[in-house]
Amino acid sequence: MLRHTYEGQDCNLARTLEVVGERWTLLIVRSALLGVRRFDGFLGNLDIARNVLTNRLTRLVDHGIMERVPYQDKPVRHEYRLTPAGHDLTRAVIALMQWGDRNLPQELGPPRRAQHTGCDGTVHAELRCDRCGRQVHDEEVDVRPVR
Amino acid sequence: MLRHTYEGQDCNLARTLEVVGERWTLLIVRSALLGVRRFDGFLGNLDIARNVLTNRLTRLVDHGIMERVPYQDKPVRHEYRLTPAGHDLTRAVIALMQWGDRNLPQELGPPRRAQHTGCDGTVHAELRCDRCGRQVHDEEVDVRPVR
Repeated sequence: MLRHTYEGQDCNLARTLEVVGERWTLLIVRSALLGVRRFDGFLGNLDIARNVLTNRLTRLVDHGIMERVPYQDKPVRHEYRLTPAGHDLTRAVIALMQWGDRNLPQELGPPRRAQHTGCDGTVHAELRCDRCGRQVHDEEVDVRPVR
Repeated sequence: MLRHTYEGQDCNLARTLEVVGERWTLLIVRSALLGVRRFDGFLGNLDIARNVLTNRLTRLVDHGIMERVPYQDKPVRHEYRLTPAGHDLTRAVIALMQWGDRNLPQELGPPRRAQHTGCDGTVHAELRCDRCGRQVHDEEVDVRPVR
C-alpha cells in the first residue's frame, strides 16, 4: 500500500506522465524499442494520424527520449532513435504490457513474449528489495515522502 | 532490443494504454495506492477538474480497475477502491516513478521512496528472467510475436 499524502504533484510519477503519460507517446517508444526508426515506419506500425505522430515525435525529442538523426544527404532525411533515457523506459513498457497480459487476456494468450536474449527464458517486470534481495508483492510496498 | 513488427496494434501494451494510457488515469491509480478513496480526496490530491475526475473514475470503474462502494447510508455516499487489477498496476506505477527519479532528477533527490514493509529496504522495479533467474538489462530483452 502506497502512503496517503496530499503533496500530490511533487511526485516523479506526475513529472514522468507529463512527458510520457499519453497513449501514443508510449506506443511510439514501444515501436522504437521494436526497431522502428523512420517516420513512415511509425506511421505503418501505429495507425496514427500524421499530425499527431509529428507532434509526439517532436515532444519526445524535446524531452530527450528520442533524437533526430540524419540518415541520408540529398535530400536530407532524418530518423528517430531512442536515447539512453528512451531505452530506460523498457521495464515500464514491459510492466504495462504484462499487466495487459494478466488483466486484459486474449483468447489465444499474450500476442508477445519478452525473451531473455541470453537464455531464451521469459523476462518479467517485478519489484525487488535492495536490502533483503526478495521479490516484493504489491501489498508489501509503502511509498513514503522522503522530505 | 524489442523486435520490429508491423502488427502494431495486436499488443497488450496498446490494449493496456487504451485503458490507462493517459496522464490523469495513472495519477488517480497512484493516489488510490496511497490510500485516497473519496472523490474530494482525489480532488485535493490531484489538482484535477471535477468533470475530468468524474470521467476518469467512471472509466476506471468500467474497466474493472476501481470499484464504487457505498460508505454511508443517509445520504448514500460512495468511495472508490482499487480492485485486484488496480493493485496489480503497482509495479508499472513504480517503474514509471523510478524512471522519473533517474531521468528527470530534482535538486533535492527523489521526493518519494518505495519501501519494503518487511525490512525497510528500497524496492526497485526490474526485469528478471524466469529461466536463469538473472536480472535482465534493457538491451538483453527481445519482445517477439508468439503467433
